[in-house]
Order: sequence, then C-alpha cells, then structure tokens
Amino acid sequence: MAEYTVTFLPSGRKVNVKAKIPVLEAARQAGLHLNASCGGAGVCGKCRVLVEQGTVEGEGQKHLSAQDRVAGYQQACLALVHEDITVRIPESSGEKQGGLSTEIPARHRARMHIFDMEGLRQEGIFYPPVEKLCLQLPPPTAHDNRADGTRLIQALADQCQRHCSAALPVLRKLRRALRQEDFLVTATIEVPVENEGEGKILNIQPGSWCHRNFALAFDIGTTTVHGILFDLNTGKVLARASCYNPQMSYGEDVISRIVQAEKVGGLALMHRVITEAMNTCIEQMRAKAQPNDGVAMELEEINSITIAANTTMTHLVLELEPDTIRRSPYVPVANFFPSIRAKDLGLQLKEHCAAFIYPSISSYVGGDIVAGIMGSGMYRTELLTLFIDVGTNAEIVIGNREWLACAACSAGPAFEGGGITHGMRAVEGAISDFSINPETLEPMNVTEGRKPPLGICGSGLLVMVATLFEHGILNPNGTFHRIDHPRLRPGRSGWEYVVVWQHESGTQHDIVLNEVDIENFIRAKAAIFAGITTVLEEVGLRVDDLEQIILAGGFGSFIDIDSALAVGLLPNLDPDKILYVGNGSLMGAWMNGLSNHIRKDITSAVRRMTNFELSELPNFTDHYMASMFLPHTDLSLFPQAQKKRTDKPILRR
Amino acid sequence: MAEYTVTFLPSGRKVNVKAKIPVLEAARQAGLHLNASCGGAGVCGKCRVLVEQGTVEGEGQKHLSAQDRVAGYQQACLALVHEDITVRIPESSGEKQGGLSTEIPARHRARMHIFDMEGLRQEGIFYPPVEKLCLQLPPPTAHDNRADGTRLIQALADQCQRHCSAALPVLRKLRRALRQEDFLVTATIEVPVENEGEGKILNIQPGSWCHRNFALAFDIGTTTVHGILFDLNTGKVLARASCYNPQMSYGEDVISRIVQAEKVGGLALMHRVITEAMNTCIEQMRAKAQPNDGVAMELEEINSITIAANTTMTHLVLELEPDTIRRSPYVPVANFFPSIRAKDLGLQLKEHCAAFIYPSISSYVGGDIVAGIMGSGMYRTELLTLFIDVGTNAEIVIGNREWLACAACSAGPAFEGGGITHGMRAVEGAISDFSINPETLEPMNVTEGRKPPLGICGSGLLVMVATLFEHGILNPNGTFHRIDHPRLRPGRSGWEYVVVWQHESGTQHDIVLNEVDIENFIRAKAAIFAGITTVLEEVGLRVDDLEQIILAGGFGSFIDIDSALAVGLLPNLDPDKILYVGNGSLMGAWMNGLSNHIRKDITSAVRRMTNFELSELPNFTDHYMASMFLPHTDLSLFPQAQKKRTDKPILRR
Repeated sequence: MAEYTVTFLPSGRKVNVKAKIPVLEAARQAGLHLNASCGGAGVCGKCRVLVEQGTVEGEGQKHLSAQDRVAGYQQACLALVHEDITVRIPESSGEKQGGLSTEIPARHRARMHIFDMEGLRQEGIFYPPVEKLCLQLPPPTAHDNRADGTRLIQALADQCQRHCSAALPVLRKLRRALRQEDFLVTATIEVPVENEGEGKILNIQPGSWCHRNFALAFDIGTTTVHGILFDLNTGKVLARASCYNPQMSYGEDVISRIVQAEKVGGLALMHRVITEAMNTCIEQMRAKAQPNDGVAMELEEINSITIAANTTMTHLVLELEPDTIRRSPYVPVANFFPSIRAKDLGLQLKEHCAAFIYPSISSYVGGDIVAGIMGSGMYRTELLTLFIDVGTNAEIVIGNREWLACAACSAGPAFEGGGITHGMRAVEGAISDFSINPETLEPMNVTEGRKPPLGICGSGLLVMVATLFEHGILNPNGTFHRIDHPRLRPGRSGWEYVVVWQHESGTQHDIVLNEVDIENFIRAKAAIFAGITTVLEEVGLRVDDLEQIILAGGFGSFIDIDSALAVGLLPNLDPDKILYVGNGSLMGAWMNGLSNHIRKDITSAVRRMTNFELSELPNFTDHYMASMFLPHTDLSLFPQAQKKRTDKPILRR
Repeated sequence: MAEYTVTFLPSGRKVNVKAKIPVLEAARQAGLHLNASCGGAGVCGKCRVLVEQGTVEGEGQKHLSAQDRVAGYQQACLALVHEDITVRIPESSGEKQGGLSTEIPARHRARMHIFDMEGLRQEGIFYPPVEKLCLQLPPPTAHDNRADGTRLIQALADQCQRHCSAALPVLRKLRRALRQEDFLVTATIEVPVENEGEGKILNIQPGSWCHRNFALAFDIGTTTVHGILFDLNTGKVLARASCYNPQMSYGEDVISRIVQAEKVGGLALMHRVITEAMNTCIEQMRAKAQPNDGVAMELEEINSITIAANTTMTHLVLELEPDTIRRSPYVPVANFFPSIRAKDLGLQLKEHCAAFIYPSISSYVGGDIVAGIMGSGMYRTELLTLFIDVGTNAEIVIGNREWLACAACSAGPAFEGGGITHGMRAVEGAISDFSINPETLEPMNVTEGRKPPLGICGSGLLVMVATLFEHGILNPNGTFHRIDHPRLRPGRSGWEYVVVWQHESGTQHDIVLNEVDIENFIRAKAAIFAGITTVLEEVGLRVDDLEQIILAGGFGSFIDIDSALAVGLLPNLDPDKILYVGNGSLMGAWMNGLSNHIRKDITSAVRRMTNFELSELPNFTDHYMASMFLPHTDLSLFPQAQKKRTDKPILRR
C-alpha cells in the first residue's frame, strides 16, 4: 500500500503514513500533540489544522467556519491523507506558546514474544500426549488365535515400544475395527505423563489415520473464553473461536461467580453455561477448520482438549464447589486434576477425547498462570524473569528454570476500568491513549474505534496518570496541583481533571479523572509493585536482579512501557527486556496439547513453585505503603522516570 | 435327631438312619439293592419289603394287596423309619437267587474342599483391592492453605503410605465431605494391582466408616447366575442370591447366545437381560444382608464387584461382540479387561464401585476357570493337579504353582442330559442314582425329590453306564450284551435298556437308555480323558504323574467317583486325592474381592498358563479314539476298574 509523507509545521517533523490515515493519527505517530477531546470522532472541532501543501480527503467536517474552509483548515481527525502534504498545527490546536509543537513520546508496547514453533519441533518437543499409531496386525490363524485385544496390545509393544491397556469402549468396537481394513488399524493412545508408564488406548479406527489427529486448547477467562483447534502433526492452528464468558450475566468477577455457585443449583448452572459456551466454540472451530488434506473434520478426530483457567474458573468448569476459595484461608478443592474424559465435563466431544486441566498453584494463582509460564517458556529460561498477568487480580511469578515463586496481588479492577469514576473496558469509545498540551491543559484523547469518548480504559488510564504526573499536573502523592484552570476543579471525589467536556463526549456528561480514581490506580500499581518486591525479598533478591519481564493477558498488550515505568507499575528495566506473550494461558494450553514433554514439565514446574500469600507476609504492608507514591518513595528504583520528570518544567501559572 | 437301626435280612446288614427316612433309602445307605423303577415315588410297587420286627409309618401304599398288608409287607419307598426295625427283602424285590442280597457300592462323592478363611487371614492374604482408610486431616490455616485434594492425598501418603490420585467425582464432593465431620474422613481406595503403584481414591465419606466395606462376587454361568455379598473386613458372606441366566430364553448354550448377539440389537439385548438379572440379585442381597453392627446396608457401601464367567458370558456382560468366538480360529475380543466402574456395565451400583473382571485364557477357557484355579488354591499348590470343570464343555487345567496348562474339551452336553434320549437336567424327577439286580435286571432308580421319574440326569447317567458295564450288561465298546430279557430290546437307536416302564414314569412313556445315548456318553468322557492325556503328553507327563484332582462346577458335586473311574472319565487316582470345590468360579471371584495379593496372582497365573487347542494337536485324535471304550483301550490305565469288572460274573442266561 502506498505511503505518503506528512510534514508538520512549525516543528518540521515528518512522518510516513499509509493512505486513508487521518491527519490526527499522523500527528500522533509523529509524536506531536493535537488537541482532540472527542477522541477523533469529529465532534469537538479542536483539532483544526491548516493544510499548506497538498490536499486531503475530508467529509462531514461540521466544526469548521466558512472562513476556516476558505483558509484551508481541516479537522485533523476527519482529514484523510491521500498524497504528500504539509500541515501546520495552529496554537489553538495544541502548539505550545513560542511556536514550538508539544511533543508526545512514542508509546512503547512490549516486544511481542514470537512462539518459535519450528525451533520447538527441532528440539523434539512435539510429541503429543494423545498420539496416533498406525499398525498392520498379523491376522489370526489357527496357530495364533490370541484375543483381538492381546493382538493389538502386543503389536503396539512390538512395533511401537508402547505398552498400553485398552479402555472398555475400545474393546467394544475392536472386533469390527480390526477386520474392516484387514487388520490395518490406527490406535489413539493417551501417553502416560511419565513416558515409561502404561499408555491407554482411547480409540481405534480401521485403516491408516495418523495424518489426522486434532486437539483443542481453551483459555477460560473470567470475562472471555478463547479456543483454538490445532493439528497435532504440524502444531498449526486450524481455527480459533472466542466469546464472552456467559457467566458474566451472573457477576463480573470471580467472587460474584462463587457467590452464585453457592446458591442452590448455582454450581450446576455456572458449570452448564460455561460448557455450553465451550461447545459452541468447539462446533464453530470444527466447522471452519481446514485440515491439510481438505477433508472436513469429524468430531471423532478431536482427541484432546487442554483447559487453562484461573482457579475459580477451573472449579466451575470441573463442577467443583468453589466456596472456600473466597474465604480465608482461601483453600481450593484441588490444584491437581486427574486425567479425565472431555465428556465428564459435559463437553460434546466424543467419548475417547481426553481432557487435560492445567493445575493451579493456589486459590488466586491458577492454571492460567501456570499455562502462561509454560507457554511463554519462562519455566525453562535461564534469565531471572518476572512474569506478570494483570487483570482484576495481578498474578506474578518470579524465577527461572531452577526455581519459581509466585503470588497473587489484589490489585483491584482499576486496570480493567473498575473503581474508576469513568472507567470502562477497552471497547469502542474507550479512551486508550492520551496526551496534553502542558500550556493549555488541552488533551488529545484517542478512543478505540475513533468513536466519541465513553470513558477511560486501563491503558488510557495508565498513560493519562503518567502524562499528568510527568507534566507536574499530578503530585507524587496522587493529588492534583491546585491550578486555576477550567479543566481542573474540585469535585465530589477530590479535585478532578476534565478529560472530555460533556458536549464532546458520547455520554452527554463530562468525563473526568478525579483524585479518588488516581488513588485507586495507585493502590493497584502499588499492590503489584509491592508484591514483586516482597516476593523478591522472600527469595533473597532485589528488583535490580531481574533480567526479563514477561507480560501476559489482555492488559499486557496495550500497556505503554514508558508510562508503566513512569508511574512505578513495573520495575525499571530496559524496555527491550520486556516481552509480551499475548494470551499466555491459551498458548500454554496449546503447548500441553502438542507436547508430552511439556505436560511432564508442568508437574515439575508446579512442584518447584513456591506460593506466597502476601497478606501473611509482614513486609508486604511496608512495601505497599512505600509504593503508594508516583512512582515510589524510593526514587532510586526509578532513575529514568525521575530524570524525565525533572527535565520537564513544572507547570506554574 | 434320633437315629434308629434298620437290620436287613437275609444279609443281616445294619444301618443307622435318622427318623422319617424311607426304608428304601435305608437300604440304599446300607448298600443293598431294592427294585424301585419309579424312583421312590410309590408308583411301581416293586420295592415291597417285610417288616419282621418293629413298625413303620407308611401312608398311601396303594400297591399292596390285602394279603400283603396282613403279612406285614410295606412299600419300602413309602415306609418311614420311626423306631428300630428288622426288614426282610424278598426275592421279588431284588434279593439275588440263593437268598443273598444284591449289594450296591456306596457312592463316593469327591471330598469337599473346605475354604480355609482363617488360614488365609493368618497368611496375611486378606487385603482387599478396594480398601477403606480413615484419616484425621489437619484443618486448613492461614499458614497451611493447601487445596483439599492435596491435603487428603498428602495425609494418605503420610499416615498410610498410600500414594493416590483422586477421581473427579471424589473432588466434586470433597469440600463438604471434609468439613462435615471436622476433617475426619474415610477414603475408599482402589489399590493398584502392583502395590507400589498409584492408588485411586474412589469415594470419600465424612467420619469414620472403615468398619463398613462391602463387596460383591458373581459367577455368571451360561445357565445360572450366582452372587454373594460379603464383608471386606471379615471376609464373611452376608447374603447370597442366584437365578437362572435370563439369556436362557434365547438359547441354552453359548453358541446360541452368540448367534443371538449377532442379530441387530442382539448384543445390547443379551447385555441388558444379564445385567438386569444381576441388578435384581444385588438388590435382594443388599436388602437381606445383616452387617455386624445391625445397621442396614446402603448401596453406597458396596465398593467392588468381581465377575467370573466363561468367555462368552464375559463378552456379553461387558457388551463385547462375541461373534469370532464361535468361528475358527476362535478369537475372543479380549482376555484381559481394564479396571472399570460397575456403572460402565449398566449395574445399578454407585458411581465409585469398582468392577473387576476375571481374565480369560481363550475362547473356551474362560474367567470362570481362572477363578476356579484361584478359588481352589490350585495356583499355589505344589501337587501336580488336574482341575476339571464339566459342563457342556469340559475345561481342564493341569499344573501346579510353577506352571499351568489348559484346554477346552468339546465334551458335548451329555453330562448335562443333552443328546441323551431321555436326558434332563438334575431337577425334580431326574434319575440321579441307580442300581440293578443282576439276575432280574430290575433297577433301583433314585430320583431327585423322590418324584416319579421324568428322565436321566448326568450323575444318573454316569452311575447307570458304570453299573451296566460293571455287571457285563454293557460291552466295553458301548453295545448291550444281547440278552433275551424284557428290559433289553432293539429300538430305533440300537438296543435299549428300559429304565422305567411307562406306567411307572412321570412321562407316560418308557424311559430308556439306548446305544446311541451310550455312544454320546462315551464320546463325552473320551473327549475329556483324551484332553487330559493330550495336555499331559504335551508337557511331557503321564496320567500316572497326577497327584490330585479338583472337580469344579455343578457336575463335580454329584459325580460318583467310582463310576467315573469305572467308565474311564477320570484318571485312576485314589479317591482321597479327588477334591470337590463347588462353585470354584464364585469362590475365585470372592477371593479376588478379598485379596489384592490374589488379584495380582491372577495376572501371573494367567500369564504362565499355556492354552492348548486340542483340535490343533495331532495326538488328540489318537487319544480320543483310544478312549472310545469303557473304560479305555489301555486297561492298564484303570487297574481298579478292570479288577472290579472281572470280579463280577458276566451275566449269562
């Protein structure tokens, strides 16, 4: 696709963008602030720019006067680039006094960790826990009239060095299966975790079918369900599906789900709705999967499903009573789960389909985290690594191939928009990026889907707090600098900054960020940072010793690294050493389905994992209190952030 | 109960009998023949005796003339002893010419093998494969918030040295079970066959319940089903139940059941009717069982069921397709069966109840035989033993604790009354004992239940052939000595001996034994004896080497040892060395339920068992032909039988 150069004046900064990109976004990419309260929806009219050379496509620009139009002004959020242009940012649109543009830093997303399928294959790690073996058995004769079962089992031992017993359903169809293709059969076998043990023949098919062996992996989140259907021979994902967790109708967080499950019939209900959702995903994936040979996939060809979920979701999927998870001393029913069949969970898979459930560590460090450390490869890295999955709770794991320590931090839902006056999830209309003109305090709000702003999502909140703090509008203790300015005013929850005026918003109300919101944000980041510090201290290490950070979960993909460092959410590490693994839980589930080596390693990883209950560790409170500042009371922990802030003149009016 | 002495004249022989015993039976016990065609039903009137001293109770004696009554005659079959008496047997009733009574030998039943429960207990063999362990778990605290499952599993390891995993249904009720009695719980555990392996927690109960652990054992015969319900702590049987195998409606033998199962829906039907019958037996036993503590038994307290059956019945109980069992090369679907749950078989036992299925050796040496060698202790004897179960097929096992060899002999159904003109099962009205007056050829028929004779059952047939042969009425080749006598006559199937005249029978027809019947009998006994000889030869031994014979099955309890030796059915062994074990199959099933040691030994016994397909062994035909005489062509094999016969004057008229 063609790229065009946009030159911004007065700074002279240039940026190459693709066709049809709004000028506002070009400015953002160029690192230049443009006032834009309405998130790029064309409502506020504050992003007026003067196109000095070239033309733009721009329709529906209602906030331009006739005079502006004649002069060549455009609403930057609605003007689309279709050739090289030169654009001037007027002072009214964000240019600083003195004719200098307000720079905004580039956002640093964490580097995406690329899953090296080919490398793993070469390491010989691909060796699914449910394998298919094709055998030509010697047909029975008068001198060899062993039972069909014995014949099969001995052939597996002789031809494949695989010692097995056969499940009853296999015996029930064995006679026909052996004779249909003249004793050429394909056996589906659940390999024992310890490879030397006895395998279990789960299914038998007449003929040669080793080339068709498929499996499912699911990440069951409190909010969303993600599934993949993959080929066990190539490791490739053939189809994906996802949906909201339908338990959402009964409460947003795990506690409300547990409360629901404690009601009469509630557990069965919670179990049923999640398995129904999984069944729908499974059927969608099966229908759209295109195996290599072009033949449609049958349900019978799906031989395993691996499920990774937090401890509460795991309980609800398995229909285990979760009651004690929410009450001190926070005891789950089980952390390890026996090898079961998918049908035992109410899944509409065939009788032989094996179900593997990721083990949990504790009530608040679940199978999703274990899956994350498996899927991200943390369990076998030599680097001292911090793995962190931020959601309503933040789970942290610290360690390397030698040892692992973990803890759940009660971060609260601030990063998911919870407990924030105008907080919301990262859906359309959520402000997810932000900058400010430090002179006028005019914001540039970027919303998801360029819709009129409805609220602030977690990533937007992080950037907003970091930006306000870096510009001295917020104090280290989380209070606003008391400035006489229309956008800063006392409100019901302390002072507040008006992010969006009501006439520019999609809610018909002012969207604000107040001091209680900021305190909640600081509590959340403090809980996480204190958790990290405390666990490190328990194992005799310091934050400085960390060599790598792995971010997992939805928040990890959006988090701006610089902002996270600026507010003291993440330890001060070279951004190159911060990786994002995406849905580590789903990846771990996928890995388990692909590799019995990994399945075996799961057990050893869980066994060498030390769980810390932060509330039981006296130092945690001290670390927490010390973290209740931006970025921290101990500024030596954040040398870069500190330097940045002091470089900026604190606003004085 | 009082005993009275009956003195018979002219022999002067005395016998002590209980009150109310008919004089006919007293004569039988004294070893004296009395003509009695009608089996003791008072119909033929041939058993007239003269009571010379004392009186008898006797009603309904319709076959005495007024003169007889005055003289003191009685029908011996209807005259009951109630004091000491002296009775004269007139010549017309069986006395030999010359005033000597015709002696009939005492019948030697095999000595009953008494199952030494206490001895086994002292050997430490009692150690059920499903055990109950009671544990007091430490309750969770803030410093010990392990998952419930982990807590239980670790306590089992620490307190009981038992390493286990928990089944999903156990996890599903674990939270409540632990907390109901303050963390005092009883775990029901399936012990691994190899004791070192991992056990499986099948059930969990709040409180202490080790004293209540019950199990079932079933012998599923082609004709009858026998079940016992026993206490796993004491080994004691608490209830028994039995019924006909309802598959009988679809055919008497295994072949007709297989044919039935091959029809559309037939296998499911055969499976359903047998499991329904088992369910009925189970419910009867549960309802009538009286545990030691007097508390009624709940279905939940039955923790295992062991099933022993022939190969076809095992297939039908497991719902495995038996088709190939009946066609050369006679391949069963499976000989070994995985550890399953009773509910997988359609049994109305609780979800946790384990089902153990006795392994088979081949299509015609089934789990009932394996159970028999376990239950009889043959698998651990040092004596070279012949185990033999005679039914439609006769299965033989030869060996000792070191080695075992087995074969199925196609004996045909002669011993069950099949293929015999007037053959029948051993039910009321079946002639089950017999003697003859060698002068008059008048028989003494003894029927089951002293009912008018309806036919001849297996044990009667054996005694009849042996008696006729010993008295020279039958030739060694199975033909009748052509004698001019009303009871010997040519018929449609060769010559025949009239056992019962039509007016004395319960069928209104003559009951006869003809030469085709005798040939069928000889074929049956020849198949068995040739099987024994052939297997012995294959392992390099001779009949003389045998040190012990164990008879199992219904026929074994009725078989007259001397007759069996006389006709060449059993090898010539001192009768003291012939044991009867009753239902060895049921006993073996019981033992399996009681002892994991035995369960482990089953596998090793089966693995060291060599199965011979007699039809594949060229020598079998030679041995069979050699056995087609009474008792055998090689008379040196039966020195005693031979001596007996030559002692008796061959009848000449």
